[in-house]
This record gives sequence, structure tokens and C-alpha cells, in this order.
Amino acid sequence: MKAAVYYGPNKVEVDDVAEPDPRPGTVKLKVGFNGICGTDLHEFYAGPIFVPTAPHPLTGAQLPLTMGHEFSGTITAVGDGVTGWSEGDRVAVEPIYKCDHCAPCRAGNYNVCQQIGFHGLMSDGGMAEYTVVPTSMLHKLPDTVSLELGALVEPMSVAYHAATLGEVTPGDTAMVFGAGPIGIGLWFALRGKGLGQDRGSVFVVEPSPTRRAAIEALGAETLDPAGVDVPAFIADHTDGEGADAVFDAAGVTPAVTTALACVGSRKPMISVAIYEKPLETPLLNLVMNESRIQGSLCYTGADFEAVIALMAQGKYDTSGWVTRIPIDDVIDEGFEALHAGKKMKVLVDPNGEGV
Amino acid sequence: MKAAVYYGPNKVEVDDVAEPDPRPGTVKLKVGFNGICGTDLHEFYAGPIFVPTAPHPLTGAQLPLTMGHEFSGTITAVGDGVTGWSEGDRVAVEPIYKCDHCAPCRAGNYNVCQQIGFHGLMSDGGMAEYTVVPTSMLHKLPDTVSLELGALVEPMSVAYHAATLGEVTPGDTAMVFGAGPIGIGLWFALRGKGLGQDRGSVFVVEPSPTRRAAIEALGAETLDPAGVDVPAFIADHTDGEGADAVFDAAGVTPAVTTALACVGSRKPMISVAIYEKPLETPLLNLVMNESRIQGSLCYTGADFEAVIALMAQGKYDTSGWVTRIPIDDVIDEGFEALHAGKKMKVLVDPNGEGV
Repeated sequence: MKAAVYYGPNKVEVDDVAEPDPRPGTVKLKVGFNGICGTDLHEFYAGPIFVPTAPHPLTGAQLPLTMGHEFSGTITAVGDGVTGWSEGDRVAVEPIYKCDHCAPCRAGNYNVCQQIGFHGLMSDGGMAEYTVVPTSMLHKLPDTVSLELGALVEPMSVAYHAATLGEVTPGDTAMVFGAGPIGIGLWFALRGKGLGQDRGSVFVVEPSPTRRAAIEALGAETLDPAGVDVPAFIADHTDGEGADAVFDAAGVTPAVTTALACVGSRKPMISVAIYEKPLETPLLNLVMNESRIQGSLCYTGADFEAVIALMAQGKYDTSGWVTRIPIDDVIDEGFEALHAGKKMKVLVDPNGEGV
Repeated sequence: MKAAVYYGPNKVEVDDVAEPDPRPGTVKLKVGFNGICGTDLHEFYAGPIFVPTAPHPLTGAQLPLTMGHEFSGTITAVGDGVTGWSEGDRVAVEPIYKCDHCAPCRAGNYNVCQQIGFHGLMSDGGMAEYTVVPTSMLHKLPDTVSLELGALVEPMSVAYHAATLGEVTPGDTAMVFGAGPIGIGLWFALRGKGLGQDRGSVFVVEPSPTRRAAIEALGAETLDPAGVDVPAFIADHTDGEGADAVFDAAGVTPAVTTALACVGSRKPMISVAIYEKPLETPLLNLVMNESRIQGSLCYTGADFEAVIALMAQGKYDTSGWVTRIPIDDVIDEGFEALHAGKKMKVLVDPNGEGV
């Protein structure tokens, strides 16, 4: 079968590899779509970062391996001892391997497991015609949720998890900094939580006209920080009380500085960005109104289920920001196009059935 | 009467001013002691910062005015309509003027009132023989709590409030960065909450040998960041899980960087420092373990009551870090000595009865 195999920096090849067989407790999936994530780009251009160069403690896998941790698929075979899952079931995959015994795992926060592994970074992943995953990773897709949306459940769950940490309620004013895929996911998640519909507001702050246009086409209200005094706008909008939650999905100094000038007393800025280095951060803002910065990492199963339920209600829309490509184009139309900013989200179709 | 009057940068004079009379709803206090705070130093050397140069919306007062917002006293007269307070009552003063109608005030968080004022910064304060305060600011001191301790209730409440935001329990491992008066107050507060006695640990990280010696003499365990790999020490002490709460009372980059390398998953760093400028902050640490930075400002009445109760139990000790001076020495032995690092905490005795 075809698989996009990662060998190290700047080296991903579409190879012909053996089809995997399901082991006990696992299923074999025919992959529907597999998204390319910012993490994959970091691996491609600057890795290996997460991909292990010695056997991973939870998976035993190491470089080289098949990429892809954002995927949907259809079960084609089940391993020994598997119950509750059958051939033909359509699923989204929650790709976390966890240790189950560290303090975060014991508290149910396995997204911050001390030994965490990801299917597609610490094992052969979904950028292939087939992949084998433990049943613990499976989330069933209703008939009304396509395999295309199914591949987006993972990144949308990253955003939904962050939105939940924002502790918002429908009447709130929220702000999203950065309109990349996670920013778009935050907008959908906050809308899904009832903001910006009959009550409350969600403002997306994004300097790029292209990205603003994309999220505006989905229905979002945007602010161009080059043209608007964003803190003054929010102060005016909230009668001086500040935003109820601000989300940093940009990861750069101007976003953090502006976000912390907008957040209200005792309210959070949720950080859901990969900060490449320490940023100059106005910590005095946090002190003066007892606001906070809360980090957000990945998701747990509850986030997957919430996103799938919202997708089943028609709350997510791929128009204008999602592109599907065949696996043979994964370098040029995938990694390179994303790196150059020519595309926002790319879904690889390894079986050539959905493009 | 004698009063230390602030006229602007580098100008505080001990003047002879008129004794104030109690207005309705207020009491006249004979001041026991009044502490000099870091905020007072900022006003003296770089102000006016908080001291208003136009009438304050809540107090109507402005420059020049008598300094002093950390004080205890004895009631010598009560204004019209005052009930529940009598001549001779010994009190600590919670010096906050609040608007009572902004969102934080409505939620009971008047420490982040949008119009907040302080007695001694936005009105004539406690660095005088007498001062007049509304009864809403009064907290009764038990007979077992001296006027010297009473003047420390305010700064100790700043620290206690921060300790409470740390959400600690007795078995926890906590860390305090910086062993100035607020760091010392955090150590007392965390001990008061049951840490570091039979169970749990409190480690104080402080580069200055003098400050380490002072807090060690009170019984604290300290770490010298120049001699110990602090994150490795904490990882070892906590079986890799990290500290349950870390407190930044230093306000400098090395403290923040080390603190965020020590804090455990989903645990807080509490910021209770005046950051003079934005600091390079490793926000990625927050994301990777979903930890957070929580700002802490001042106190509310509950903090005052908690500190006074702990003082009545003998949990606070002024040995080695508190100096009492007569008001005539307020410049040389107060502001200048603190600025030069020759003293840690100075209490001014305006009536010359306690020195």
C-alpha cells in the first residue's frame, strides 16, 4: 500500500509498504482522509522533534515511520478480543497513547500524560491507505458526518478543548487571535457553545487579509489589528469590563500583548499555540486585574464526542479553508503549499476515493 | 500633629498638620504603626504613580497628601451614626475604597474594582499621629495581636490572598520565589494553610544570602538558585510531577523562567509581583502541561480576617526582618534604608510610643 513515510528533515517519501494486520485489541482502518498539521510541518522542516529516534516507551516505534495523526477511516478488520466494533464502522481517531499511571492520567487529564505518544508521530500513522489502531482511540461517526469532517475532528477537538478551558457562557464576549485552522476551530467551538448567535460576541483578530476573508466567509466578525485599536474597541463593546475570554492561536508577541490588554478581571487568556521561544509578556496586566494565562494542550475523548455531536448538527463548514489532495501530491500540494501559506488546511486522500 | 506628607518625586516632609476629625460613618484612629511598602518607594523615587494629581473619583483627594496604607491603630473618636465600634478598640485597617457597582465589585472581588482607591495613596493615610477612616475598613485586633503585627496585616494579606489563589492543600509541594516581605508573607500563609508542617513542603528560592538567612531564621527551607539546579531538585522531590503551586514574589525573568520549569501539570504560578516591564516568558511551558499564570492583587476582607486569626495563633514572627523607627527618621531610616537594601520592612511609629 502507499504510505507517506518520514525519514527525517525534508525527507518524506510516498513508499510502497506492507499493509498492517490488526493485533488483538485493535482494528484495521481504511483511511478516509488524513490532515496535515502544523506539527507535521515542524517535523518535515525542522525535525525530528516528536518523532522518536529510539523506541518510544509506549509504542516501541521509531524513525522512519508513516506520518499522520489527524484522520478518519472505515473499519475493514477487527483484531482478536475486539467487541463493539465491526467492519464498516466509520470512525474518527483520537490518536493518543497514554501511560495510565502518572498523576495527570490518574486525574483523567491524559492529554498531559508524562509519557504521551501520538499515532502518526510515535507510531505508523494515517497518511497511508491503511493503519491499525487500538479500539480505545475510536470515536464512531454518525451517518451525517462525512469522512472529510471526520478527519477534522482531531484539530477541531484541540480548539474545542481550549474553548472549554475558557469557561464561557452564551452571553459572553470572546476573542480569537489568529485565524488559522485552530482559530477557525475556536470560532466554531465558541459558536457551538452558544456565543455570537442570539447572545454574546466572538471577535477574530487576524492581520492577514486572506485569512480574515476566509473566516468572514464562514460568518465570523473580524478585527484587523493594523486598522483598529483592538483594546479600545473591546473596552467600548464591553462597557469597560473587558473580554470574558481571549484565545491565543497565533503565538506571537503582538497577539499576546493585545490579548492581555483586552481580557477582563479574573478572566482567562487561553494559550493554544506553539510558542517557538519565550515571548515578552506583560505579566503586570495579569496582576492588575487578576486575569490569567491558561495553557491548553490537545484534547480528551469528551472533546472528540462534543465536536462530533456539533458536526452532526451541521455546525462545521469546510468551505474556503480545506483542500483535499491525493497522497502522491503530499509534498508539493501538501507540505510545501502549507509552508508557503498557499493553503490553510490540507487533507490527504490515501485511497483516492474522495478527491 | 506630625505627618509624612508626599509632595512628589523625592519629596516627603514630616510636617505639622491639623488633626483630622471623624466624619459620619468614620472613626478617628491614633496610629500604632504604619509600614513602608514597595509602592511607597515607587511613589517616592518615581512618582506620582498611584497618588492622583487631580481629585480621585472615590475620595476627592489629590497630591500633596499624607502617605501610609499599612497601619494599625486605636480608636479615639467615632463619627455620627457609627455603631459597633468604640473608643479604645484596636484595629488593623483594610485601606481599599471601592465603587461597589463595577462587575468585579458586584462579584465580591473589590480588590480589582475598576475605580479602586487606597487610604494613604488616594487620601491622607496612616503615616501620621492620627487618621480618619470609614468603619468599612476596620478589622478588630484580638488582645493577643500587637499593634506591630496589626500594621503587618495588610502586606501579609497580600501574600495570603496569593496563597489562596494557589489552591494548595496540606500535603502539597509549594515554592516561593523571592524572600522579601511578600515572600516571607507567602511562607507564613502557606504554613498557616498547613503546608510544610507534618505534611508537604515549602521551598523558598532566593539568590540573596542575606534574605535567605533571614527567612531561614524563621524556619524556612531555602534554595539558592546559583548553587542548585532548582527544576531538577523539584522534579526529584515530587517524583517528576512538579510543584503543586509556585509563587512569583520576585518579578524578574530568572524567577519566572525557573518557576515555570517547576510547576506541575494543571497547576498554577501565582504572580504577586510588580513587573516593571514585560518579561520574556516561556509560554510553551504552560501549553505543554496545561499549567497557568494567575495574577494576584491585594486582598479582600476575608484575607484580613484569616491573617489576624493566624496571628492570634502565634503563626507570625517579626524577628529579623521588621524594624521600627520614629516618624522623624522616615527618610533616612525608612525610604533610603529600604531603597539601599539595608532593611527589609520598616514600621513607622508616628506617636513615638512603640519604638
